[in-house]
Amino acid sequence: MNYKIVLRMQGRILIITAAAMTPSLLISFLYDDGAQLSFILSIAIILAVGIAFALSFRQKDSVMRPREGFIIVALSWVLLSLFGALPAFISGAIPNYIDALFENTAGFSTTGATILSTIENVPEGIVFWRTFTQWLGGMGVLILTIAILPAGDRGAQNLMWAELPGPSSERIVPRVRKSVIILYSIYVALTLIQAVMLLFGGMSLYEALIHALATAGTGGFSSRDLNIGAFNSDYIEYVVSVFMLLFAINYSLYYAIIARRFIRLRKSTELKVFFMIIVVSSALIALNLMMNNYYDSVETTVRHSVFHVISMSSSTGYSTVDYNLWPEFSRIMLMILMSVGACAGSTGGGLKVIRVTILFKSAVRELKKIIHPRSVNIVHIDGQPVQDKTLTGILHYFIVYVLILIVAILFVSLDNMGTETTITSVIAMISNLGPGFGAVGPRFNYSGYSYLSKIVLSVTMLVGRLEIYPILMLVMPSSWKKT
Amino acid sequence: MNYKIVLRMQGRILIITAAAMTPSLLISFLYDDGAQLSFILSIAIILAVGIAFALSFRQKDSVMRPREGFIIVALSWVLLSLFGALPAFISGAIPNYIDALFENTAGFSTTGATILSTIENVPEGIVFWRTFTQWLGGMGVLILTIAILPAGDRGAQNLMWAELPGPSSERIVPRVRKSVIILYSIYVALTLIQAVMLLFGGMSLYEALIHALATAGTGGFSSRDLNIGAFNSDYIEYVVSVFMLLFAINYSLYYAIIARRFIRLRKSTELKVFFMIIVVSSALIALNLMMNNYYDSVETTVRHSVFHVISMSSSTGYSTVDYNLWPEFSRIMLMILMSVGACAGSTGGGLKVIRVTILFKSAVRELKKIIHPRSVNIVHIDGQPVQDKTLTGILHYFIVYVLILIVAILFVSLDNMGTETTITSVIAMISNLGPGFGAVGPRFNYSGYSYLSKIVLSVTMLVGRLEIYPILMLVMPSSWKKT
Repeated sequence: MNYKIVLRMQGRILIITAAAMTPSLLISFLYDDGAQLSFILSIAIILAVGIAFALSFRQKDSVMRPREGFIIVALSWVLLSLFGALPAFISGAIPNYIDALFENTAGFSTTGATILSTIENVPEGIVFWRTFTQWLGGMGVLILTIAILPAGDRGAQNLMWAELPGPSSERIVPRVRKSVIILYSIYVALTLIQAVMLLFGGMSLYEALIHALATAGTGGFSSRDLNIGAFNSDYIEYVVSVFMLLFAINYSLYYAIIARRFIRLRKSTELKVFFMIIVVSSALIALNLMMNNYYDSVETTVRHSVFHVISMSSSTGYSTVDYNLWPEFSRIMLMILMSVGACAGSTGGGLKVIRVTILFKSAVRELKKIIHPRSVNIVHIDGQPVQDKTLTGILHYFIVYVLILIVAILFVSLDNMGTETTITSVIAMISNLGPGFGAVGPRFNYSGYSYLSKIVLSVTMLVGRLEIYPILMLVMPSSWKKT
Repeated sequence: MNYKIVLRMQGRILIITAAAMTPSLLISFLYDDGAQLSFILSIAIILAVGIAFALSFRQKDSVMRPREGFIIVALSWVLLSLFGALPAFISGAIPNYIDALFENTAGFSTTGATILSTIENVPEGIVFWRTFTQWLGGMGVLILTIAILPAGDRGAQNLMWAELPGPSSERIVPRVRKSVIILYSIYVALTLIQAVMLLFGGMSLYEALIHALATAGTGGFSSRDLNIGAFNSDYIEYVVSVFMLLFAINYSLYYAIIARRFIRLRKSTELKVFFMIIVVSSALIALNLMMNNYYDSVETTVRHSVFHVISMSSSTGYSTVDYNLWPEFSRIMLMILMSVGACAGSTGGGLKVIRVTILFKSAVRELKKIIHPRSVNIVHIDGQPVQDKTLTGILHYFIVYVLILIVAILFVSLDNMGTETTITSVIAMISNLGPGFGAVGPRFNYSGYSYLSKIVLSVTMLVGRLEIYPILMLVMPSSWKKT
């Protein structure tokens, strides 16, 4: 382990984080919300620690292997969770540090789980920072770091490998920095378009920004307790639905559109499966709601079904109605969607559509083999055969994922919140979704959990966000051995 | 597909089933319980159909490949479920046929789920038959068939392959018939020893037999509504605990004891892991119960913990108290244990300890590989390396298992019984356990479900009992192609 590069990078990331806090400070001043001083103090602390790290570990040694990449990513998310909690804590908006930590981890991990019951009383600057962390977390603070403070392409590549979600580390553009800038431009552009469209829907500039930022990160924080439901606007519901969907798609496909390589879109297995999941799930849920006479009109039924299917699939976690009260079939469909999650290479969470697709295809192949032992079946993705190594890797990923779920569920179960609440809390965390079912449904929050559970749930969010392995490496002593 | 051999075997199995009904008929006469005529009628019907099948498909063609073996096993379990339900239905003990089918499938699949709320009003003959099906199901009616009505060793071997639970098709004794007789003797001997020990505990001969038969099959049916809890005897609880454990262990280990090959016991990874699971889970649950002040004494706490840990792990489903009311941690521990299940090559259900062990070891190996990419790690079981093919097979088995769980859960969810009840019902079925949690907890039953759910749950029991693939082959058109 090359300690110096790991810690130097942490310093740089903290300095950027301090800089990223200034818009929230400005909003705090603009609204005179009383949180100005807490922002100034937070920025000072973070800047001091960041500069100390960056200066203490200066060295011309740039050896960076995947292991260092993993550790840098994991450690930076831990530090961001710890330090990003300062404004809410210092300002007294969240008087308990563990609560502030939970809330802020739910920000940077783009989860959107909250312990606040009345966000409408929280200072505007704090609310903005809370959402801004989701936007930062969404594309990865580290991609930002690579684009602005490059550590050399070789190193950056390893960071990218650990950073970009999804099983394939396909390079979008050969040169990493260029690709990061392109990805980032797409991200910014989509965010701005959504914000403008929300302005048209009658939102204030502040609220349009808040919701566009949170949607872009597929985070799901809001400035309203009832989030999207609070606006009571079909137009806004449709706009948010569309953008939640757009932010849940593999960004390399946008690059393909820009580069006019439409064949890649047509060939994308993941995109097809993702749309099929959205359409079939929405139809089934709409049917289930109609059969149980939930809403007056077909349009209302379909709108709510589609909205929540996309909200769960994209791991955003916004809601327009209390889906917790839906019939059991619809609820279980949503639980499955939240586990599957979004496309790889997007800001969404969950197992990822591509992994689930490969697992499914692989299982079907196995069944065919049992019936026709001599048949040859190969799993294809995007028209290409999937290598056995990739397949085994994904199968193992799933096993490790289930094991982590079980361990987290056992810890959280000590709070006696009931089976449904306990299990869906943990799934919502590892999928970076936010709300779950039962006592953590869309009309409730996570404040009822003990400190132990809040810490376990926070770790689970990071495990989910970084796709397990970086966080596991961080806590395994053997990865810290000097080499 | 060789139809003739498949259907001829079904005929033979039905004839045996009719014969196996006679002890229940005798008990019916002995207690003059009013079900005598329904038994005579059932035996006549089953015998007639069986003889018709056996005579219609006579042929000297004995080509039997694994595919035929799978189909024979699957189809026979379906037919047994359908025909074994006759006495309860005809006698009026269970006036609805779907209910009778559910109850009887829970018998032959050794699940032990019930739709009866007061078993104490049911005729003794019917109660005995209900338990006897679990004993028959336990070791597999087909092993009985192989031992008594051999279809040639080559054919028998293929049957054994599909029949014997667990991922390894290790032959206990090279000659199949001999091995079946040995296995069967162990089974009978253990059942008798348990019955005698229960007699010492003050049970009547009838009740001692009922509970020994149900324990042997790890079924969990009883003649009392409160099953083992009804006897209020610490001695009986300990005896049942020990025998549930004994029946959940790989029977080849008993053969090893008889053959004085103690090295096999010492080397058995599965046995070690199984005992470790039992000890650690019992300790954790006891601790959790104590911390929540559930029982007066340490002995009571430990007794209840151990009993239910073994009951869930062995997939028996007996209870001495209402574990549904235990604290959440204990409940989730039990849910995990019911999913893991017993050892391969036992009468128990679930994923099987050996599979879970291999999945776990394989995941740990993967993690080591990620940290040290060049390290070589091989998964060992019983001191032998596990082949990649076996490993991939188990990984796929797990995926298919999860997919089937999800499909069954979605069907059952249409009944709106709540998430906990819905999910644990299906897990309890696929693990052949019996009771679940919530509205299907140990003090309740499955009568609240719709006919659709009862059929889906019955199929799930068979899928679990036959380890998925035979039932899947039965419903796949391509396996019925003529060759």
